[in-house]
Amino acid sequence: MTPARVLVFGFAAVILLGALLLALPQATQDGLGLPFLNAVFTATSAVCVTGLVVVDTATTFTYFGQWVILLMIQVGGLGFMTFATLFAMILGKKITFKERLLLQEALNQVSVEGIVRLTKSVLQISFAIETMGALILTLRWYSDFGWSKALYYGIFHSISAFNNAGFDLFGNFSSLTAFVGDPIINITIMLLIILGGLGFIVLADLLTPQKKLRLHTKIVLQVSGALILFGAVFILIMEFANPKTLGPLPIGTKVLAAFFQSVTTRTAGFNTIDISNMYETTLLSMIVFMFIGASSGSTGGGIKTTTFIAIILSVLSTYRNNLHVVLKGRTIPREVIAKAWAITTSAIFLIFIVLSILSHSENSDLQTLLFEVTSAFGTVGLSLGITPHLSVAGKIAIALTMFIGRVGPLTLAFFLTQKRNKLSTQIKYPDERIMIG
Amino acid sequence: MTPARVLVFGFAAVILLGALLLALPQATQDGLGLPFLNAVFTATSAVCVTGLVVVDTATTFTYFGQWVILLMIQVGGLGFMTFATLFAMILGKKITFKERLLLQEALNQVSVEGIVRLTKSVLQISFAIETMGALILTLRWYSDFGWSKALYYGIFHSISAFNNAGFDLFGNFSSLTAFVGDPIINITIMLLIILGGLGFIVLADLLTPQKKLRLHTKIVLQVSGALILFGAVFILIMEFANPKTLGPLPIGTKVLAAFFQSVTTRTAGFNTIDISNMYETTLLSMIVFMFIGASSGSTGGGIKTTTFIAIILSVLSTYRNNLHVVLKGRTIPREVIAKAWAITTSAIFLIFIVLSILSHSENSDLQTLLFEVTSAFGTVGLSLGITPHLSVAGKIAIALTMFIGRVGPLTLAFFLTQKRNKLSTQIKYPDERIMIG
Ligand SMILES: [K+]
Ligand SMILES: [K+]
Repeated sequence: MTPARVLVFGFAAVILLGALLLALPQATQDGLGLPFLNAVFTATSAVCVTGLVVVDTATTFTYFGQWVILLMIQVGGLGFMTFATLFAMILGKKITFKERLLLQEALNQVSVEGIVRLTKSVLQISFAIETMGALILTLRWYSDFGWSKALYYGIFHSISAFNNAGFDLFGNFSSLTAFVGDPIINITIMLLIILGGLGFIVLADLLTPQKKLRLHTKIVLQVSGALILFGAVFILIMEFANPKTLGPLPIGTKVLAAFFQSVTTRTAGFNTIDISNMYETTLLSMIVFMFIGASSGSTGGGIKTTTFIAIILSVLSTYRNNLHVVLKGRTIPREVIAKAWAITTSAIFLIFIVLSILSHSENSDLQTLLFEVTSAFGTVGLSLGITPHLSVAGKIAIALTMFIGRVGPLTLAFFLTQKRNKLSTQIKYPDERIMIG
Repeated sequence: MTPARVLVFGFAAVILLGALLLALPQATQDGLGLPFLNAVFTATSAVCVTGLVVVDTATTFTYFGQWVILLMIQVGGLGFMTFATLFAMILGKKITFKERLLLQEALNQVSVEGIVRLTKSVLQISFAIETMGALILTLRWYSDFGWSKALYYGIFHSISAFNNAGFDLFGNFSSLTAFVGDPIINITIMLLIILGGLGFIVLADLLTPQKKLRLHTKIVLQVSGALILFGAVFILIMEFANPKTLGPLPIGTKVLAAFFQSVTTRTAGFNTIDISNMYETTLLSMIVFMFIGASSGSTGGGIKTTTFIAIILSVLSTYRNNLHVVLKGRTIPREVIAKAWAITTSAIFLIFIVLSILSHSENSDLQTLLFEVTSAFGTVGLSLGITPHLSVAGKIAIALTMFIGRVGPLTLAFFLTQKRNKLSTQIKYPDERIMIG
């Protein structure tokens, strides 16, 4: 069995297990358990760290159900292979070369060397960040909810934010709209989302002080920063006077909310204003930001920031009649550019096919459907409100889109890099690989 | 001045001249002349052979106004440079190398050799086809309208169809809906559209009996055939029972109408059923077909059939981990693939930007706007009915989109092929150039 298949079947197995648990009577407050299709949808949404929900997380599930969801988020976010290694390490088992290959795939890494060390630091860094986030949120919510609930909410939302999952416990599909003007909550959640979305390789690179930053790290930081800033400025300008979104808020809160709504497209899925009331033009821009998504090997989704910059540079090179795509004095290898095009085209094709299906099966307008499908593909979790009202066909289509969105780019990238460097390429500048998808 | 600039300024000059003529009191039946913005829009639509109309052609214009429009369609369709050569030949003027370069650009050809001969045969073939079309239509309409009107309608609609312009004289924005079940009119118009959309090089290749068909010709014929067939089958299945489109028609007419509506996306703009009543899913597929459009160097628009097949093959090659894009035992050169990506990405970018502007300036839903923008970019001319109701900003945006859609791919391709073959490429199979954009 190829690593790609192991990953697909592994993710599917975790989803199935989670769905079975959510279907148990203990999982829901009505004592009936979740109907199976809704259970599969919710489990897929959790494992694929999307956050699209057909039932309200806070009011539908018991503590047991919510912990199952949180566990699936953690497993899905950090990757079940990372978890498998963790267990292997805990049990002192030897890690085989084949298992290392699986890990390489799970983390979208190009070298098998040091993969176990990397996995360990992935887990250490992740838990450290999640713990800090949980602490800050707990301290902030203590006065509102008391220690016990504050701690529970702190842990849940810190893990949900760092894993770009977007699940929340505030009820009535309201996400974080109650805290639109709260700087501590906004900044903490934003930092968790951003750190989770940069990718483990970037985090590890940033935490290794002695050496120069990789090209990949520099690109990810610059592109992510530019996307967040551009998105926030665009949202601020477009929605400034919208009486249903930013309009009634004081100026400082307007800026905070604009940044939060921009950060959430990288692909967290929390929101602090009612995005279904945003103007069409703003929603169109958010669809693009969700499509681009987060960075490679992160808890986020989308085609990835590096894929986006690779295709932009490729087009600009063609405009200049230059066959080589050059970035910061390095040539991006031709097969990387080809991968970027393949990923982007496959994503557009997938979104179009699912959109066509939904245009037939659902009663919503095209914009609402395109927003939903792009959100599912990018494992974002934002919705204009139709998720709970999806038809059976619609739920299945969206669940499959979340699954392909989460698993696809990774497995596709593996298939694509598997036999790389079999053909030499003409090189003008020294090569350096950046990660794609 | 570069050839690309000459073409842009030339097209713009023809549009401006046409707009001034349409603004004359003699041009409109109310004796007031067309308001300037509407005149510019109509002239742009005619010269760019699009067919989107803000006023009804039959009831608004006098014979003079209609002949101005027909002349602009002919100039725009065959390319004003082809016309310039025609005049040069008539006047016996020597054609300079620079003028040949301009012609090469106008026809999207890769070699300067034989360009005058090609231009002559372009004009001969075009007029021969248009004359045959006009004759058949005149004979068909004689019994309905009498000789004089039948001849006028025959000439107008033959030229409009062969040039993929989509302007009609049947009033009330009704296009050819009155003739949905008429096989002679449907088949004649379809053949004119298809022949005009294949491109002059393909027509010349087909009319030269001694030699083997070029790779380009084979690809264009196969892809065009496949697109028409697939579109027709999809429309037939989706709309079969739609009471507002194919539903009430007898089965033979259903098939005829499905084929006509498929052919019209290649990018003629006539319609025989009310497309605004089609289902969302059908309209989505038509948006894709309009985006792909017709073939290079033809009277049609869109990214072009060869561009479409080039990016599909490129993605499939990447899936198979093959750096070379191979088709029928030939390698498609790398810079051609790069051009295909650049054209497609630029087109998507343009459509998205214009869509964003319209989502702000107009009151229509996203699907209607996307259909309109794609129709304008592909110089198709189909509309769900909003063209006459566009705001001033909307009219300007759509007019610019038609202009870039018609001029852009050609000029872009010129810029891109200008310095080609400066870098050698690795070749596994013998190379053969196919045209892009
Ligand atoms: K998410
Ligand atoms: K047209």
